[in-house]
Amino acid sequence: MSFTGMWRDLAPLGRDAATGGYRRYAWSAAAGECRAWFRGEAEARGLAVETDRNGNAWAWLGDPAAGGAVVTGSHLDSVPDGGAFDGPLGVVSAFAALDELRARGARLDRPLGIVDFADEEGARFGLACVGSRLAAGRLGREDAHALTDAEGVTLPRAMEAAGYDPDAIGPDPERLARIGAFVELHVEQGRALDLLGRPVGIASSIWPHGRWRFDFRGEANHAGTTRLQDRRDPMLGYSATVLAARERAERAGALATFGKVAVAPNGVNAIPSLVSGWLDSRAPDEATLEALVSGIERAATEHARRYGTTLDVTRESFTPVVDFGHALRDEIARILAPEGQEGPEGPRRPEAQGRPGEPVPADGAARASAQVPVLATGAGHDAGILSASVPTAMLFVRNPTGVSHAPAEHATEDDCAAGVRALADVLEGLAADRG
Amino acid sequence: MSFTGMWRDLAPLGRDAATGGYRRYAWSAAAGECRAWFRGEAEARGLAVETDRNGNAWAWLGDPAAGGAVVTGSHLDSVPDGGAFDGPLGVVSAFAALDELRARGARLDRPLGIVDFADEEGARFGLACVGSRLAAGRLGREDAHALTDAEGVTLPRAMEAAGYDPDAIGPDPERLARIGAFVELHVEQGRALDLLGRPVGIASSIWPHGRWRFDFRGEANHAGTTRLQDRRDPMLGYSATVLAARERAERAGALATFGKVAVAPNGVNAIPSLVSGWLDSRAPDEATLEALVSGIERAATEHARRYGTTLDVTRESFTPVVDFGHALRDEIARILAPEGQEGPEGPRRPEAQGRPGEPVPADGAARASAQVPVLATGAGHDAGILSASVPTAMLFVRNPTGVSHAPAEHATEDDCAAGVRALADVLEGLAADRG
Repeated sequence: MSFTGMWRDLAPLGRDAATGGYRRYAWSAAAGECRAWFRGEAEARGLAVETDRNGNAWAWLGDPAAGGAVVTGSHLDSVPDGGAFDGPLGVVSAFAALDELRARGARLDRPLGIVDFADEEGARFGLACVGSRLAAGRLGREDAHALTDAEGVTLPRAMEAAGYDPDAIGPDPERLARIGAFVELHVEQGRALDLLGRPVGIASSIWPHGRWRFDFRGEANHAGTTRLQDRRDPMLGYSATVLAARERAERAGALATFGKVAVAPNGVNAIPSLVSGWLDSRAPDEATLEALVSGIERAATEHARRYGTTLDVTRESFTPVVDFGHALRDEIARILAPEGQEGPEGPRRPEAQGRPGEPVPADGAARASAQVPVLATGAGHDAGILSASVPTAMLFVRNPTGVSHAPAEHATEDDCAAGVRALADVLEGLAADRG
Repeated sequence: MSFTGMWRDLAPLGRDAATGGYRRYAWSAAAGECRAWFRGEAEARGLAVETDRNGNAWAWLGDPAAGGAVVTGSHLDSVPDGGAFDGPLGVVSAFAALDELRARGARLDRPLGIVDFADEEGARFGLACVGSRLAAGRLGREDAHALTDAEGVTLPRAMEAAGYDPDAIGPDPERLARIGAFVELHVEQGRALDLLGRPVGIASSIWPHGRWRFDFRGEANHAGTTRLQDRRDPMLGYSATVLAARERAERAGALATFGKVAVAPNGVNAIPSLVSGWLDSRAPDEATLEALVSGIERAATEHARRYGTTLDVTRESFTPVVDFGHALRDEIARILAPEGQEGPEGPRRPEAQGRPGEPVPADGAARASAQVPVLATGAGHDAGILSASVPTAMLFVRNPTGVSHAPAEHATEDDCAAGVRALADVLEGLAADRG
């Protein structure tokens, strides 16, 4: 099946007719359909499919037990009403790159793997990269078992309902030890490549980021009869905090977003008893992020008190800064160097652009270069989780609008094809024994 | 069944175990259980029960076709996580007052009716007093058929599922023409009676009030990669509007509340594409209310524009000021006048307190008097809808905290008993032919 054919088969799975966005939540029926699609593509190529203890699926060419495997892939789940590219582009491109390698008659001295990680977006249980976190030992079994979705369904119950064994989850060091290099291709989620006029880039780092739940508690009461001075309305402190977070993020050159809210009882004529807002915040470095979030928390505490309400802040997740290793990044840059750039002494080392100390997502300023651009990103990825255990790198494909996590997320056919070629080049280069 | 027994039987119906609040939404299973309870209490007293074309239930002592009926009652549905008293107190007190009249051996020259109105709170379909509005011709069949709940279920489908005929709904002037007087007893939803130290009061008026939906539309995008200056985040304009509404309501001596919010896609790491907030606003008079709401709308438009988003405001409902008729109000005041207050020339006319021009809900200032207090309210009621077609009055029972539409809503046993006695006195007085 060609890239276009695979894309067409995936397109209707988990798509909401009204919004045009995707709702491929972890362990849902839609996620099961995506997984069946993955298995079908793998088997059509003669790959051996295995599902690991954490619900991640791996398709193998060659025997992974031989070690030193070159693995690529991404995830198929989505945020609520997400776009078609975030995740699936990396998986579809993986199969298409294998087809390209076979068409080239490329020699692969190492096992080649294609992975579909489970629950990358964390849309259902509020924690991102659950499949890779579990495998890498970055999320304990007890913490994972306590995860509960908005309907009160726990992760173990959801896994069971989807046919997986929740008691088997946990660290999987043997499996990760077989991997010599992991390369995740992903649609860019900002406009850096577009501003540079380049179809493909390499990741330098992932900004530290986290999620905090702000619970403003007041007293439910009748909106038509309760005097303003008698109210303890948590909507007011929440609203003031949303504005404070934006202002402080601007000053810090960082990002702060309240994109999710839950109100109780959420009735038109009822003053709320509880307003919960989730803060997503990211910054070029951890010190900036910590200062930003504690500043927002201080402002929120004052606003809550001003309106007679209380505030509890819970850190639901935190991911430290990720610096992808220079060795693998340099090797990929050499493989992808444009013709004529590589002299007899080898390519110049690519200049890292958009280091964590530089606010690339905030100003899109990866600098132009004849070499493949290297850029930082504010978005978390399974590659970021794996990078602590395995040599890991990422390729980005240009996103002309920068829109992501929304139905308008897009990459052109030409750029997707350029991504597939680049990925094929990288896999071929990494899978060739040079000994 | 005694007042206490009826209260105990109603208590578990539609109650949420976690919050302790009630979720008796229109046409739901819980509403059906409440209706079955109503029928049981009516039949146990030998009353004839009929359900009208709009799903309101009436229990009759005597033949209503005789005309001039005295009717009391209220509703049994609730807001989300509402209290036990708003609505049910008026229905339970109606049955208890009938028992009291029978115990007294009171003579009733007119038919006596007890009514349970359908869908008073509007919690499910967003429009309050649907049953009484339909009967009074204040809501058209087509508009009613277009009502849709949060799950996409239309009112006709919900009625059908509950065993009612949605094609039969519409004005019911013959039924209303049989009614000589309607008196609704209700728990007070503010603290005016508590501040006066009186268990029972009479309504003078209902503030004009309405519901407006504010739709802030922006662009969904990735919270971790979209530069602040590239965002069109509707949460920001919404938040600024919440604060502006509070400030303007304070200045106007009125009420403005954003108690319900819906966010799309409502993901932690997604900038929203849409934030819908519902404004509930009420004021002592219509001019003040109109000025307040248009001021909030102007502020909201500016805030929306500032953050690159758009705003649409939809008026979902509006109820003009209701002035309960002086004739019936005076007659009730005479009936309830404390002993010794009524000289040979009859009682003084009660001094109206908390007229619509006076912000009673905002300052609780119904003035103390030896006579039964007369007070305005900010809350809408079926009595307000019926008052345009039928001589209508309301009795309020003291609420010691003023909390309403919340599980803590309360009235003491003694005050409930005083309410039942007052209602029995009023029914006896009104049902006696004086001609």
